[in-house]
Amino acid sequence: MSKFRYRISFLILICTGVCASSFAQEKVLLAADFISEKDSDVVPGVLKLLKEAKDRKVSKIIFQPGTYHFYDDHAFEKYAFISNHDSGPRRMAFPIIDFHGLEIDGGGAKFIMHGLIIPFAIENSSDITIRNLSVNWFRPTHSELVVAGVSSDASDPYIDFGITDQYPYEIKNGELIFIKKGFEHNLENAVYWDRATDAVAFQSRAMTPPMNQAVKRSVANLKDKEPILYPVDNNDPAFRNRSIENSLIATQLSPGLVRVRGVKPNLPKIGWVLVAKGRNGYNRLAPAFRLIRSERLQVNNVTVHHASGMGLIAESCRDITLTRFNVRPDEADGRTIATTADATHFVGCRGEIKMEECTFENQFDDATNIHGTYFEVTDLDGKTAGLRVGHFQQTGYEFARPGDTVVAVNPRSSAKALTSLTVDSIRMINPRYFRIYFKETAEQLKKGFYLENISAYPTVEISNSRIVNNRARGFLISTPRRTIIQGNTFSNMMSAIQCPNEFTFWYESGFVRDLTIRNNTFLDGSYGPPKPLALINVMAHADQGEYIHGKIVIENNTFTTFASAILSAQNTQNIIFRNNVIRYSGKYPLNADNPVVKLQNVFRADITGNRYDAAFKNFIFTEPLPGKLIDQSNRQIGSASK
Amino acid sequence: MSKFRYRISFLILICTGVCASSFAQEKVLLAADFISEKDSDVVPGVLKLLKEAKDRKVSKIIFQPGTYHFYDDHAFEKYAFISNHDSGPRRMAFPIIDFHGLEIDGGGAKFIMHGLIIPFAIENSSDITIRNLSVNWFRPTHSELVVAGVSSDASDPYIDFGITDQYPYEIKNGELIFIKKGFEHNLENAVYWDRATDAVAFQSRAMTPPMNQAVKRSVANLKDKEPILYPVDNNDPAFRNRSIENSLIATQLSPGLVRVRGVKPNLPKIGWVLVAKGRNGYNRLAPAFRLIRSERLQVNNVTVHHASGMGLIAESCRDITLTRFNVRPDEADGRTIATTADATHFVGCRGEIKMEECTFENQFDDATNIHGTYFEVTDLDGKTAGLRVGHFQQTGYEFARPGDTVVAVNPRSSAKALTSLTVDSIRMINPRYFRIYFKETAEQLKKGFYLENISAYPTVEISNSRIVNNRARGFLISTPRRTIIQGNTFSNMMSAIQCPNEFTFWYESGFVRDLTIRNNTFLDGSYGPPKPLALINVMAHADQGEYIHGKIVIENNTFTTFASAILSAQNTQNIIFRNNVIRYSGKYPLNADNPVVKLQNVFRADITGNRYDAAFKNFIFTEPLPGKLIDQSNRQIGSASK
Repeated sequence: MSKFRYRISFLILICTGVCASSFAQEKVLLAADFISEKDSDVVPGVLKLLKEAKDRKVSKIIFQPGTYHFYDDHAFEKYAFISNHDSGPRRMAFPIIDFHGLEIDGGGAKFIMHGLIIPFAIENSSDITIRNLSVNWFRPTHSELVVAGVSSDASDPYIDFGITDQYPYEIKNGELIFIKKGFEHNLENAVYWDRATDAVAFQSRAMTPPMNQAVKRSVANLKDKEPILYPVDNNDPAFRNRSIENSLIATQLSPGLVRVRGVKPNLPKIGWVLVAKGRNGYNRLAPAFRLIRSERLQVNNVTVHHASGMGLIAESCRDITLTRFNVRPDEADGRTIATTADATHFVGCRGEIKMEECTFENQFDDATNIHGTYFEVTDLDGKTAGLRVGHFQQTGYEFARPGDTVVAVNPRSSAKALTSLTVDSIRMINPRYFRIYFKETAEQLKKGFYLENISAYPTVEISNSRIVNNRARGFLISTPRRTIIQGNTFSNMMSAIQCPNEFTFWYESGFVRDLTIRNNTFLDGSYGPPKPLALINVMAHADQGEYIHGKIVIENNTFTTFASAILSAQNTQNIIFRNNVIRYSGKYPLNADNPVVKLQNVFRADITGNRYDAAFKNFIFTEPLPGKLIDQSNRQIGSASK
Repeated sequence: MSKFRYRISFLILICTGVCASSFAQEKVLLAADFISEKDSDVVPGVLKLLKEAKDRKVSKIIFQPGTYHFYDDHAFEKYAFISNHDSGPRRMAFPIIDFHGLEIDGGGAKFIMHGLIIPFAIENSSDITIRNLSVNWFRPTHSELVVAGVSSDASDPYIDFGITDQYPYEIKNGELIFIKKGFEHNLENAVYWDRATDAVAFQSRAMTPPMNQAVKRSVANLKDKEPILYPVDNNDPAFRNRSIENSLIATQLSPGLVRVRGVKPNLPKIGWVLVAKGRNGYNRLAPAFRLIRSERLQVNNVTVHHASGMGLIAESCRDITLTRFNVRPDEADGRTIATTADATHFVGCRGEIKMEECTFENQFDDATNIHGTYFEVTDLDGKTAGLRVGHFQQTGYEFARPGDTVVAVNPRSSAKALTSLTVDSIRMINPRYFRIYFKETAEQLKKGFYLENISAYPTVEISNSRIVNNRARGFLISTPRRTIIQGNTFSNMMSAIQCPNEFTFWYESGFVRDLTIRNNTFLDGSYGPPKPLALINVMAHADQGEYIHGKIVIENNTFTTFASAILSAQNTQNIIFRNNVIRYSGKYPLNADNPVVKLQNVFRADITGNRYDAAFKNFIFTEPLPGKLIDQSNRQIGSASK
């Protein structure tokens, strides 16, 4: 009987999809009634489609397979403060704003963007599903240069770069500028990828060209500056380029072949690819998925081949599930990287973040980062405080909601909560300066303390995903709620998993209390920096004996890598590291400088039943533990590689 | 009896002002209860003051005399599309938004701004009066350089500039960059002022340094550009710097003395002041008064000593009166110019614009410009059309309101209205692209036509004002409603009064139907360009026999200037030029190249009773008039100066 009902539903579903457009009462819309592959620009049609969907409370939109082009010219625009991005007025291909209960099934369609446009902007919405489609850009917002030659004279180091027609450029006053639709970028923020490994070139940081240098000669007259009453964010684009000039001087040898002087004497290898995205403040302009103030969101079977910024950035959302959400280049494009920043990123989210069977390959930054945000107390008056936003890419961020619990920390000591307050309301005076009103008098709060919203952290589960060949790290985890990382494969330029806990640069808040890392495969990692960092790196901002992090279980993982630094943990209550297998990979020259396990200011640890490659001689280093150290059944095994 | 009642009211008024703060029911607030001259930054106090004023429906705020400093750091911010300015998120010292019936009496106070902040932003408000105060910036947003020396070798022209500590700078990659609070600017958009005349240097345009030059050598590889579906605005900052590089190479001789090469061989005089405001798109960032969607506004006895952009810009407002509204440098600052753009500017305003006894001296652009805005029809569908915004400084402009009458013109022929439509509604898709809905089917509308909002023009009266020593023009008048210009004194770098009528660059709409210019004093004008333009210049975009302008009366004025070009009129129905006295000033070398009166495609003219200097030999040149030409009682008089 239930089987029969299922079949009927299925038939109705088929009919709905096919016949929807002719029956006004149906809740499904066919995109084909609004747009066609033949349209040079589907943006106006998609806007009509979305308006119709909202007006008729449509629950599903179905696309025909095909390739659709989206231009920014006639797209909807709204000012967007986007955390960890460059905020501004932003065009949007799918402005899914104030929608409740909508599924978009791409049917395998390819959506190609032209210009600075956010493909999916989901805002103030709930129960939204996006599935079965890919997102790409006709021309990427970054540029790639192939090392075609290098100087043999160390006193006059230069690099000759080959640049394909995909990356139009010009040279202005010696500066190599790449021309995009509506913007341009220079050679700042560049990293070498090695085509042989498809990864960031081994220990290449030393070769990455310095893009700018301080004005060296006395050519500034800055004596009589404006008085400064308030702290300045020197990372802000309005200030960050002060007193630095371009040090990379380009000349064209022939069209598509450019010689660059001013590089480090330590030269890259021929064939390496220099991936450049330009100045900070102008290289995170249009993430592929932008989610804000929304809940119950699913993205399934979606691939992001490029974005200016992140593949997916979610702020102040609740309950997000990504299944087979992939960030990777499209082979047909011949590009080395996909997104110019993280694959995914979650700020101030609640409920559950779940990722399954995702692939995050060859993006310019971390695979994910899950955290909150610190706001600094600048002035106090009874039940209210003025709050300063520390980082320019957090301006306009929705820090808290009425009823939230916020805690205060003293950034000069540690991340330990010193006082707890309930939010009555919060008001943005300007994107850098907020006013918060508490339900209680904030007696213990002090000017200079940082506030952290303890109500806005999610539980996390990331399973069976592949995180390889990206710049920077795999996962940055800063949530005190239950977090499980299992069945994933990692191979990253820096650490695979990091619990950062810092508030001096990024102002990203958070710590872990209940983190489990099990059944993962860790391949070569931390191959970018000159000295390898631990693949699992649990850090604390200050060391005053506080146990900032809680319980961390790392079990049944295999590590196959070139360097011995596997786990480093600081300021943690309880570390359980058991039944892991650790082998030398042979892929890069052996580095056994560090112990496999390094514990600093840890209260209790259980390091049991691990097997480690004989090449990694030094298994454990620990400071004295006030609690207990169980260190048993750990044994060397024969080296996996020569 | 009535006298007695007056006295009582007066006493009550005095008491109100003095006692207000202690009686919650009073309608007057004293600023001194919120701020003090001792505050390093009065912005937070002024925000509280305004909140209190709104909550308590206060009708008047009174300041104590004194100097008050306003910093942008903690100021209210709102995104602002500002016509003829660079739009963006803007800080505001006085965000007068949704106020109805408020007078702010500055009591002679000086308001000093720090950073990019709009002193007075009046939005969605009515019955607002601002009086008795001045606005200035601690550091101006432009920079001034004094010519300290020039090369004597014509094959290697250079200029040595002296730069005081008021203008901190640095040199980056050979480019001279001036450092301000939160932004910087280069040497683009620069003009020489002559200290001897306090005006733009005579015919100095030929010496103004070319700030950028096209990339000359083949250093660009732009073969494979992104497909372009939509027109590009090459003036938009996103595009305007393509393929040009800095051609002015600076080196510091000693702190405060900078040598600039790459200048024209025609060199300036020692002592002249080069006033520079930097790249278009970044030099009109914070007007002193920003008025939008408001009505019954008065600004009385207010002086603007500086602003980044205009002294006052009003958009979509009704009924504005400026009395003794002055734009001029404060002598104490030693600056050559006040605002970096127009003194005043009115776009899409209705009702009456009235200016009396104003002074507009030494600003970087016109004294006023009163016009509408053309939007281009890009696509059509029955009763709706897509509209493109032509100029980047009109993006986001409120083109029309429901019920407005818009007319269409064909920009390839003339500004003559071809069809008239009634607006049902209009919606901004993005700041460059709007959708308009008409009450009728737009049968005669065609793609490529421009729409003009004929409902949004004001009547104008400008009396007894002084408009001297500014760059560019005096008044640009483009309103078909009654306009009277009387009792003013002009001396401008270009024309004193211009009726432009053009739609190829600025997209500023409008024409005159009923313009009277009487009893004014025109001193030397049009001394900037190599060939003088007529002091009163009535222009038309295209000449196809249409009489775009209506009746223009020019009577009882005196002109005392170096060049004979007094009136040039094109495409006008009826010109009356009578009883004017025209003399050679002797201030600059005589230029008698042009007739005093030049008429082209004018239907009817009455040129009567004028007296003109014998030095200006050629009195009238006219094309044949289909109507009548009265040319009588015009006579030469002895030359006033040799």
